[in-house]
Amino acid sequence: MSTVLVEVQRGAVVECRHYGAIAVTDATGKLVASAGDPQLLTYLRSAGKPFQALPIVTSGAADAFAFTDEELAVSAASHNGEAAHQLVIGGLLARLGLDTDALRCGIVPPIDRETAARVGAGLITPTPLHCDCSGKHTGMLAVCLQRGWPLETYKEPDHPLQREIKGVMGDFFGVPSDEIITATDGCGVPTFYASVANIARAWATLTTPPEPYREAARRVLDAMAAAPYMVAGRNRICTSLMDLAAPAVVVKTGAEGVFCMALRERGLGVAIKIEDGNGRGMATIAAAVLTQLGIWDEAAAARFLALHPPQLHNHTGTLVGELRSVFTLQ
Amino acid sequence: MSTVLVEVQRGAVVECRHYGAIAVTDATGKLVASAGDPQLLTYLRSAGKPFQALPIVTSGAADAFAFTDEELAVSAASHNGEAAHQLVIGGLLARLGLDTDALRCGIVPPIDRETAARVGAGLITPTPLHCDCSGKHTGMLAVCLQRGWPLETYKEPDHPLQREIKGVMGDFFGVPSDEIITATDGCGVPTFYASVANIARAWATLTTPPEPYREAARRVLDAMAAAPYMVAGRNRICTSLMDLAAPAVVVKTGAEGVFCMALRERGLGVAIKIEDGNGRGMATIAAAVLTQLGIWDEAAAARFLALHPPQLHNHTGTLVGELRSVFTLQ
Repeated sequence: MSTVLVEVQRGAVVECRHYGAIAVTDATGKLVASAGDPQLLTYLRSAGKPFQALPIVTSGAADAFAFTDEELAVSAASHNGEAAHQLVIGGLLARLGLDTDALRCGIVPPIDRETAARVGAGLITPTPLHCDCSGKHTGMLAVCLQRGWPLETYKEPDHPLQREIKGVMGDFFGVPSDEIITATDGCGVPTFYASVANIARAWATLTTPPEPYREAARRVLDAMAAAPYMVAGRNRICTSLMDLAAPAVVVKTGAEGVFCMALRERGLGVAIKIEDGNGRGMATIAAAVLTQLGIWDEAAAARFLALHPPQLHNHTGTLVGELRSVFTLQ
Repeated sequence: MSTVLVEVQRGAVVECRHYGAIAVTDATGKLVASAGDPQLLTYLRSAGKPFQALPIVTSGAADAFAFTDEELAVSAASHNGEAAHQLVIGGLLARLGLDTDALRCGIVPPIDRETAARVGAGLITPTPLHCDCSGKHTGMLAVCLQRGWPLETYKEPDHPLQREIKGVMGDFFGVPSDEIITATDGCGVPTFYASVANIARAWATLTTPPEPYREAARRVLDAMAAAPYMVAGRNRICTSLMDLAAPAVVVKTGAEGVFCMALRERGLGVAIKIEDGNGRGMATIAAAVLTQLGIWDEAAAARFLALHPPQLHNHTGTLVGELRSVFTLQ
């Protein structure tokens, strides 16, 4: 039941197609709308970061270390590695009494092109802070400090923090946590396998969380909504979508074509998976979902897409084609 | 009739799938083997470069300007923009009495990562020679000089060279050329729309070409087989596949998930299209095609895949998954 979500047109005809699935559910897992197969399985990847950030609040670390909204948002981020992100994470790390050596996320080029070019040109020394996951890792270290857990091994699947996060995912997916398949994420921590429907359920549950997550989920979503720049950065759809639609809509990308939304006023979660992993059509998909659900009108969608034009340009800057969402939610 | 060609596995389970189609035909268009829908339509993109190079020979330019194998191969290339490629193209341009200002391919980062990093760091001044299509454009200029056609407008669809190339494509696709849909390619010249089956037919026809292409097709394929480094460069599948299998097998990638092969001893052409445009699984697909057709044994395929391991590594260099071809040619 493969469904085309996006067509890529060059000139007058279609050159490429992106297959995938979309599920919209409430917090009980009831399917409200879908495209393609809601049982399509994928890893949550970075769309799991808001859940991975919940222990910062539930452990008491958020209060003990006086996390600001920006710090909590960057703990749930795939940030650009811009100076603004590094400043916030560096400040938090210092308050934890740690330096960048404590981060195990690796030294990777920042997502932000301009910052990456400056790193490539030797104008900036690359550090673990450039990694889009460095905020998440800093948040994980804060939990370990608060709980008195080992810092060096926080990435390992059998570390108490990762075991706790797996339990969180079971609660939000609505499945026994010992049945969740995991693998190694880009930054080395476990990532979690689930159907698109169960991922939507997890995001819906963020909007109406049960105890012991009530306060934590509200604070994480509020922080992301209050500081969308910390969640991603310039030229990124998470940031510009939340600039336009937060706090009612809170969103997060994940690698390999994942995008999730919490529709807080409706109590719904949205999970999108592009089956081939290529997110180039995600802006047009997200805009279509919000429009079809009646959350955005055409003008709001147009304002968002003006920031992320679904267009193809060639080497010489000529407009040669466009991306177009072609699904209808059922 | 969407068919999965490649699965991307992370940990123990599948995270992504790449759909597509493969056609293997002879020069009459007779389908010998296929996976997915052989009528799937796509643009030829850079897998059209050997055809775009034919007029270099048929016009007499190859002889008039004494093209070497390296020069003819780089005229049919999506080269890396390494120093070796720039040297050959620069020498040819000089022999044509032109400089890089005559090239209309645009100034774009070279495909080769190391060269691109040196350009990014300001250690090398970017020029049109870095563009992967600069050899093709130099070959086009040679034809224009030989024919006495305007140089400035050689990219335009109504320029006599582009009209001639469209006629060539009609002859090789086996369709009336005025029925071929075109669009603007990455470098600005026309690219050609056809079914995967007709693209395979075109590549098969290169192996047993009718007049007036007999000598031209032989010389272009022989040049690509003799100078595979000029067709792509280091860490590129075109180069390493031909290092192992030329002159019997001559190959060329195209953007948006296109890969074609001329099986010269069989008189067959192979066309592969990944429907989403992502070629990350192309090495494993090409190896599976050659193995299933009995051209490679498992050891030959393993030698090739050792150069292009179908593996996923994360930020920190950990092996986290693999790519696996999952189709069987029918």
